[in-house]
Amino acid sequence: MKEKSIIELFKIITKDLIAPSFVKKGIGEDAAVLEIGGSYYLITTDLLIEDTHFKQKWISPFALGYKALAVNLSDIAAMGGKPECFIISIGIPKDFSSKDIDELIKGLKTIAQKYQVFLIGGDTVRAEKIVINITVLGKTEKKPFFRSGAKVGDIILVSRFLGDAAAGLAILENNLNQKDFLSLINAHLFPEPEVDLGLYLAETQLVHAAIDISDGIASDLMWICEESNVGAKIYKTKIPISSICKKAAHKLNKNPLEWALSGGEDYALLFTIPPNALKQIKEGIWKKFKREVFVIGEITEGNKVLLVSEKKIIDISGKGFSHF
Amino acid sequence: MKEKSIIELFKIITKDLIAPSFVKKGIGEDAAVLEIGGSYYLITTDLLIEDTHFKQKWISPFALGYKALAVNLSDIAAMGGKPECFIISIGIPKDFSSKDIDELIKGLKTIAQKYQVFLIGGDTVRAEKIVINITVLGKTEKKPFFRSGAKVGDIILVSRFLGDAAAGLAILENNLNQKDFLSLINAHLFPEPEVDLGLYLAETQLVHAAIDISDGIASDLMWICEESNVGAKIYKTKIPISSICKKAAHKLNKNPLEWALSGGEDYALLFTIPPNALKQIKEGIWKKFKREVFVIGEITEGNKVLLVSEKKIIDISGKGFSHF
Repeated sequence: MKEKSIIELFKIITKDLIAPSFVKKGIGEDAAVLEIGGSYYLITTDLLIEDTHFKQKWISPFALGYKALAVNLSDIAAMGGKPECFIISIGIPKDFSSKDIDELIKGLKTIAQKYQVFLIGGDTVRAEKIVINITVLGKTEKKPFFRSGAKVGDIILVSRFLGDAAAGLAILENNLNQKDFLSLINAHLFPEPEVDLGLYLAETQLVHAAIDISDGIASDLMWICEESNVGAKIYKTKIPISSICKKAAHKLNKNPLEWALSGGEDYALLFTIPPNALKQIKEGIWKKFKREVFVIGEITEGNKVLLVSEKKIIDISGKGFSHF
Repeated sequence: MKEKSIIELFKIITKDLIAPSFVKKGIGEDAAVLEIGGSYYLITTDLLIEDTHFKQKWISPFALGYKALAVNLSDIAAMGGKPECFIISIGIPKDFSSKDIDELIKGLKTIAQKYQVFLIGGDTVRAEKIVINITVLGKTEKKPFFRSGAKVGDIILVSRFLGDAAAGLAILENNLNQKDFLSLINAHLFPEPEVDLGLYLAETQLVHAAIDISDGIASDLMWICEESNVGAKIYKTKIPISSICKKAAHKLNKNPLEWALSGGEDYALLFTIPPNALKQIKEGIWKKFKREVFVIGEITEGNKVLLVSEKKIIDISGKGFSHF
């Protein structure tokens, strides 16, 4: 079953029920939005299960702790919020040693400190496989970004190279020499949520729609198109792919574009802005972060995500990597 | 590893970090407490895993959905709050049919409607075993109850018969005729969170400490003692046990007192009040709900939970049923 149809099922639960007055957005965004005391509070949750999302063989307990929180912070970043605190539930198998638990906690602590996110509660249980569920509460004084705000003519940008995380996983799976591809492996194991960039973009009040790239552009851009009732065109030559990702693809006889479009787990920000805001956004980001962001296409009429290359136009709507 | 030591580990994560100013209580209560815009918001999470917490053999998907939300609402009730909305993460095995999913959703919807709790988000993934994590957000204008508020001399009350849920599980496990013990099986499958009672008690402002009985009195009362730096004495003859529970125990050659003390999953409220408030509380509850609550003992100095019978006094500190 695809996530989309599960969301339809979830909507059955809320049917006939009146939302509390402080609930501004519910199902269908990166995070739910509550408006309380003049601020917006964002709540997001992610469930990670061993052998569905990760294999112990390829991820250390430290990296697992780090990544589990990072992917949730990324959802808050995608709404332009500051992550404030989190709750964690952990299912722990018998063969997970107390040293492993210490390392998991260290990984969590490392990223919690980095982004100043405070743990406020948790639950722990025995399980056959490792299970980690994290719920993060974020906050913003500005209007949060929604998937539903994209407008025809908007420019689509992504915040960094795509495909590195998928390449990193492929390197681990194929036992390539890790030392040669450390940045890719780190992209897979220690994804950096775009919290600071999200906060900056929220300040500008220029962003129409945003999402974090967890499943790949093809799939995540489709979410924006569906929620905004628009289409999108992206250009093959504009998809930012790192040279080391290309090198890994060459070595593994893979197409790096496929990693970039549907590999998933990059946790880059994808956002849309009106064309006249492009100069200000690019210059502002360069000034503040000394980094580039990449224009990859534009929002169109219609309801498809199209990939444009010199020779042809392909419909890639929803062709993402999905854990379901 | 016991929950206690996991909590110590969790505290490592928050060390050196400054809590956001709106965080009033974090780890160690039934729910975390946030104070925003003059109200208190309560957040709690519970992770349920197949074969750790339940077996598909003994619980229908409908009951599973119902119970998964009920146990979280119980945590909010234990703080005197009104549950407002929830987020759910579900891991679904391949052999869980779409009819099963429909039933699970129906169970969730039934209790969500009953308590007017609104679903605001979720995550679904593939898993080998069923995994359900629910996070509930509650609210109260009154000061929430804490585990840490018990005072020496307080009277300890429980809100209903204890041991029924454990008896119900034993009946299912031993294939006894379900029709003869329906109320026990329902206590196990469809626990009723004490939301209305909790809200009423919060109104009175007379409660010093409260907890919901998820692991059994011995264990849950110990939490209150530890957090409040007190001891407790409870009286064997005062533990409320239903006659049908006694009947089931007789049939299975079990001690019903053991189910009541450490069977767990009753989700009754356990709360402490000053002695001079007893009359008002009992009369108020009778007037409003036409039901009794049961005095089982009192808060003492020391740090133990003692069970007093005619012949002896036994230390039962922490002898609860634990999923860990």
